[in-house]
Amino acid sequence: MTRTVISSATREVIIGSDRPFAIIGERINPTGRKLLAEEMKNGDFSRVERDALAQVEAGAHMLDVNAGIPLADEPAILARTIQLVQSLVDVPLSIDSSIVEALEAGLAVYRGKALVNSVTGEEERLERVLPLVRKYGAAVVAISNDETGISEDPDVRFEVARRIVERAADHGIPREDVVVDPLLMPVGAMATAGRQVFHLLRRLRDELKVNTTCGASNVSFGLPQREGINAAYLAMAIASGLTSAITNPLSPEIRRSVMAADVLMGNDQECARWIRAFREPPVAGEQGRRINRRRAAPAGLPAAS
Amino acid sequence: MTRTVISSATREVIIGSDRPFAIIGERINPTGRKLLAEEMKNGDFSRVERDALAQVEAGAHMLDVNAGIPLADEPAILARTIQLVQSLVDVPLSIDSSIVEALEAGLAVYRGKALVNSVTGEEERLERVLPLVRKYGAAVVAISNDETGISEDPDVRFEVARRIVERAADHGIPREDVVVDPLLMPVGAMATAGRQVFHLLRRLRDELKVNTTCGASNVSFGLPQREGINAAYLAMAIASGLTSAITNPLSPEIRRSVMAADVLMGNDQECARWIRAFREPPVAGEQGRRINRRRAAPAGLPAAS
Repeated sequence: MTRTVISSATREVIIGSDRPFAIIGERINPTGRKLLAEEMKNGDFSRVERDALAQVEAGAHMLDVNAGIPLADEPAILARTIQLVQSLVDVPLSIDSSIVEALEAGLAVYRGKALVNSVTGEEERLERVLPLVRKYGAAVVAISNDETGISEDPDVRFEVARRIVERAADHGIPREDVVVDPLLMPVGAMATAGRQVFHLLRRLRDELKVNTTCGASNVSFGLPQREGINAAYLAMAIASGLTSAITNPLSPEIRRSVMAADVLMGNDQECARWIRAFREPPVAGEQGRRINRRRAAPAGLPAAS
Repeated sequence: MTRTVISSATREVIIGSDRPFAIIGERINPTGRKLLAEEMKNGDFSRVERDALAQVEAGAHMLDVNAGIPLADEPAILARTIQLVQSLVDVPLSIDSSIVEALEAGLAVYRGKALVNSVTGEEERLERVLPLVRKYGAAVVAISNDETGISEDPDVRFEVARRIVERAADHGIPREDVVVDPLLMPVGAMATAGRQVFHLLRRLRDELKVNTTCGASNVSFGLPQREGINAAYLAMAIASGLTSAITNPLSPEIRRSVMAADVLMGNDQECARWIRAFREPPVAGEQGRRINRRRAAPAGLPAAS
């Protein structure tokens, strides 16, 4: 059983197929959020604060932090965002950038063992990102594409993932600290996208023996009722071996699908979390107990801002 | 690709992994429905009629018909129910009984190629049910238990399924006319129930190359919010190879999960069915078109009676 440990200064999350599925909150990301991008660039982090708190309250085990804003000083903004988020919540973070200097700036201020998001199989990325991951004792998301692009053949993507795992080992990074992203295409554009990823996830679990993650919302791009597709996708991917995802914990549909999948994978001990979340309201006369129970229960799902 | 053809006098359903998932409506079954049992026993089939129409309207591809009422003349009631249902709807039926005489009475009046539900790996059942299936040119559900009961080891259940497929072949029934039920336990009673079935479904698809079905509602027995578990289970089982299920098409959650799974398996061509069901309402000014579209769309989900 491969277990990946990610931590903040005070909390540890273990990713593994015998653990509840790890939800990595996707909201702190200015890509496609014009207002958030503008605010972050101007030093206004109030929306980042709200997104951080809301996602953790909704049950995110980790948060992804991205500061990819065109024409901005990404390393500085990413480092500042990470410090701010770590001052507000104690879940571990995924440091998300395509700019190596930003990853380094983030790692330099991060307290704990971060998840670096990401490295690809491209030679130049491997040789720049892996030494950083090693230096800071982090874990890393390995995206299964290389110089030739993203193969439509899942077995080619598997070989790219295998190469990254081997190269990480050369740099002293153990297999359990490489979390593979099998790359999920929109199913509306490519009808085989789902089947491909389910097949690849099984091979990554059974043969390469790594943990896995993916940006789960991509699959429904261009379709109506995206959350219905995303929720079913996550359940199907979990059955195929997926152990974490960057997704939206503020969606009740996604949360419920992941919780049900935890039950069905035997990773919600005695179904306790499911029962606590969904048990029937008690009959009249139990009112006092009901209030106490509600106080003891985890918070509900706040609306997305 | 294994394809199982089931038919009524006028309609054919093909079960297979490159086809939309086949939903077999579970409602016409007096087990646990006291009022329905009483009515059927007294010759009142009005609720059966409503259940038949509502399930087909909600999208059931087939209907399961069961008349298991204690101390009643089950063969006569089952035959009468089948004739009635076939006079109302044109979807193929699954003839469901544990009494061989009832299966025969049902087969004798059925028009088309029925699905006989079911035979087990018990010697006496094999030797009584398989000749009937052969005689009437039907297909059969093979339940993976035998004289020793239901094994908790999915690999033992696989061997039972293999034996039934071989025995069916001895009787002249081809592999594609044996639809294996891997036997689904309640996950609240057995935490490994889900994982076991997912593993078994993959072996049944990849090694035994048969279509599969199961009574999907059993998995959530004893838990709150059963439809949330059932919906996630179906998506996960479809990803693992399940090609049909006896379930409740009147549940919007289950219907949506199965439709999303069809999209993700690449079995909803160009996502046309998903888009038709969930596209956004058009903006003002398109009112006329909206109404026409709604008329052209399939009927919504009526409430369960």
